[in-house]
Amino acid sequence: MRQSILFTKTIKESPKDEKSVNARLLVRAGFVDKLMAGVYSFLPLGFLVLKKIENIIREEMNSIGGQEILMPTLQPRANWMTTGRWEKMDDLFKVKDASRKDFALGATHEEVIVPLVKKFVSSYNDLPLYVYQIQNKFRMELRAKSGLLRGKEFMMKDLYSFHLTEKDLDGYYEKVKAAYIKIFKRVGIWKKTHLTFASGGSFSKYSQEFQTISDGGEDIIFVCKNCNQAINREIFDEVKICPNCRRKDFNEEKAIEVGNIFKLMNKYSKPFDLFVLDEKGRKKEVVMGTYGIGLGRIMGTVVEVCHDEKGIIWPEEIAPFHFHLIQAGQGSKTEKIARRIYDDLQKSGFAVLYDDRKGKSLGEKLVDADLIGVPVRVLLSDRTLNANSAEVKLRSKKETELIRLPALNKFLVSRKLYV
Amino acid sequence: MRQSILFTKTIKESPKDEKSVNARLLVRAGFVDKLMAGVYSFLPLGFLVLKKIENIIREEMNSIGGQEILMPTLQPRANWMTTGRWEKMDDLFKVKDASRKDFALGATHEEVIVPLVKKFVSSYNDLPLYVYQIQNKFRMELRAKSGLLRGKEFMMKDLYSFHLTEKDLDGYYEKVKAAYIKIFKRVGIWKKTHLTFASGGSFSKYSQEFQTISDGGEDIIFVCKNCNQAINREIFDEVKICPNCRRKDFNEEKAIEVGNIFKLMNKYSKPFDLFVLDEKGRKKEVVMGTYGIGLGRIMGTVVEVCHDEKGIIWPEEIAPFHFHLIQAGQGSKTEKIARRIYDDLQKSGFAVLYDDRKGKSLGEKLVDADLIGVPVRVLLSDRTLNANSAEVKLRSKKETELIRLPALNKFLVSRKLYV
Repeated sequence: MRQSILFTKTIKESPKDEKSVNARLLVRAGFVDKLMAGVYSFLPLGFLVLKKIENIIREEMNSIGGQEILMPTLQPRANWMTTGRWEKMDDLFKVKDASRKDFALGATHEEVIVPLVKKFVSSYNDLPLYVYQIQNKFRMELRAKSGLLRGKEFMMKDLYSFHLTEKDLDGYYEKVKAAYIKIFKRVGIWKKTHLTFASGGSFSKYSQEFQTISDGGEDIIFVCKNCNQAINREIFDEVKICPNCRRKDFNEEKAIEVGNIFKLMNKYSKPFDLFVLDEKGRKKEVVMGTYGIGLGRIMGTVVEVCHDEKGIIWPEEIAPFHFHLIQAGQGSKTEKIARRIYDDLQKSGFAVLYDDRKGKSLGEKLVDADLIGVPVRVLLSDRTLNANSAEVKLRSKKETELIRLPALNKFLVSRKLYV
Repeated sequence: MRQSILFTKTIKESPKDEKSVNARLLVRAGFVDKLMAGVYSFLPLGFLVLKKIENIIREEMNSIGGQEILMPTLQPRANWMTTGRWEKMDDLFKVKDASRKDFALGATHEEVIVPLVKKFVSSYNDLPLYVYQIQNKFRMELRAKSGLLRGKEFMMKDLYSFHLTEKDLDGYYEKVKAAYIKIFKRVGIWKKTHLTFASGGSFSKYSQEFQTISDGGEDIIFVCKNCNQAINREIFDEVKICPNCRRKDFNEEKAIEVGNIFKLMNKYSKPFDLFVLDEKGRKKEVVMGTYGIGLGRIMGTVVEVCHDEKGIIWPEEIAPFHFHLIQAGQGSKTEKIARRIYDDLQKSGFAVLYDDRKGKSLGEKLVDADLIGVPVRVLLSDRTLNANSAEVKLRSKKETELIRLPALNKFLVSRKLYV
């Protein structure tokens, strides 16, 4: 993409109404725009990152047998009465139409998926079943001040699994856990992310969540120094021993919950009377699991974890572009060579942000590049052209390297620059 | 995809609460599920079609310079007060949070895009600008009875263009028109679709919309027998002459509005004071256009237009799969060959629905295949295997053809079967 076309512009000063690192950097670099507290628009750069996160999640969900669907935001009151959450869920948005009919805005989708699955599932042969969607959620969040980490409206992947037995659920739960670890590796936060024991609700002693250590986090976790698993503060006082390795030595850390995996058992199959007939024709209640990841929250967490004082440092797999090509000066030769590099890289299948803006100094362009955070910067200036070269620099490193032009495309394309 | 895994099942009887052809067929074939009037879930097959429509629209919007973003559903009351639509728009959903703050649910996004663009656009150099999104819309539709054609919640592509002059808007408007025609060709409804003059609102004599002739339509249009353009009934009495070719000879038809293109002029730039400075530093109000296509409505329209008494007949580019491979009988030889065909087609880059279901007769499988409507059916049965062949049939044609197995993959992959 030519940067002269991109309609967003970087902002020098941090917006005064943003306290969180992720919102400050994402707003300044033009990835998102705040419409109001807890509600953001994704601008072209942010949209690209969001789609990359979405595709990673989709691939990993498909690889564990997930069938993708899309459920509505507007949901009938009756379904929420059935589960008792119409009254009990404090942060549920409720809306009426002109005929005074009540709807919930989907804060989660158990109230839709369970009656939906009930229409198609009747025999043990129909199980197990794994269904997921990537859809907006709405929650009445009154103190939304952590940028993309906590919003009134946010995009989420929610997977629901349906099983004949608890044992079968247990097996799939482990598969989802492995898929989540892959996702966190691919988006670049796994090294700081810990599988964490949290309160289990009414159905199991503990639930599990994934927590990423970050000063921007709103949670406190205790990380076991021995096995690296963690315990959420909410249950630490009653637990005090690592449920995984039974040791007692912890580091206290601030962390962001980036995913959760939860055995629902019959919590929602019961109120909707979701059952199947087993081999012997006996009625058996379906056992369920639910597994969530917020896409915007992942984006915000990555920024919290991957940045320096100059700006964002995107991990390769979710960067909006592979390369940021910077053209310094408007000499016809410089422009011609820059365009050729731009075309060649795109032909090789790479996404390039090409800074062809006129009226911006080299200094301004480099400051913007650092703020935006594309993993590899390729600079073409009078100085590099005198050496018949381009300067290549990783966003995450200080060193630069002059690469001769005839070898440049091969160098950029063939090398695993990002390791 | 193996059909034995697909969790939806076809339904023999038309659902009693569905009057429209599109909803009846889409529900029966398992593409969508009705949550309540005007609100549907997209099930795995429907989700695939929705994504194909989305990608076609995205490609065509990108090809005319559109920059994709994603704007929120929850919108502050203040923005809607600025345009006067908080009170004037009857079908606007309004919602309060616990602090009694008011929000609109996005029925359209002018109230978000204009203040957003205002943050980045200040000079004539920043124009023209084309921004679009694919996002849910919410409208308080009390008589939603046309399936996917009219909903309370529906996915829409909305493109907004920003210009320095009306002349520039006029030029881009024609480009969008051409892109829309490409979209309607690719989704398979262009032959029945007419560019239609409709009421222009307060800013131009006429607006234009695209109307697809169909008995399922809620609109009436008058199609000029000479030039094939049409006039919406709402303005026919005042017009009576084709605005395009000046003739007076029309056919009256029922039709579905599948897209609209509209010159907004300064309707929304004025209330938000969106202006730029021109070459001479003079303040100039920005001129706007808006262009919409509903994705679900396209899906519903295609079904209204492309079906027979047996089911849906998907046009190639938006079909959920390229091939429907039917295995009749469970003999180990049949299954082995079917699996090989399935693998080979997928390796060649095609999407295949493979009916490997046990306990279904060949007759049931063929009835399901006709209902689901994948363009090409490939049948493997004892009969065809005796001839060392598979039977190939287009959903849109009556004829079948026996193709010898060694030549099958090449036949399916290399031939343009769908012309």
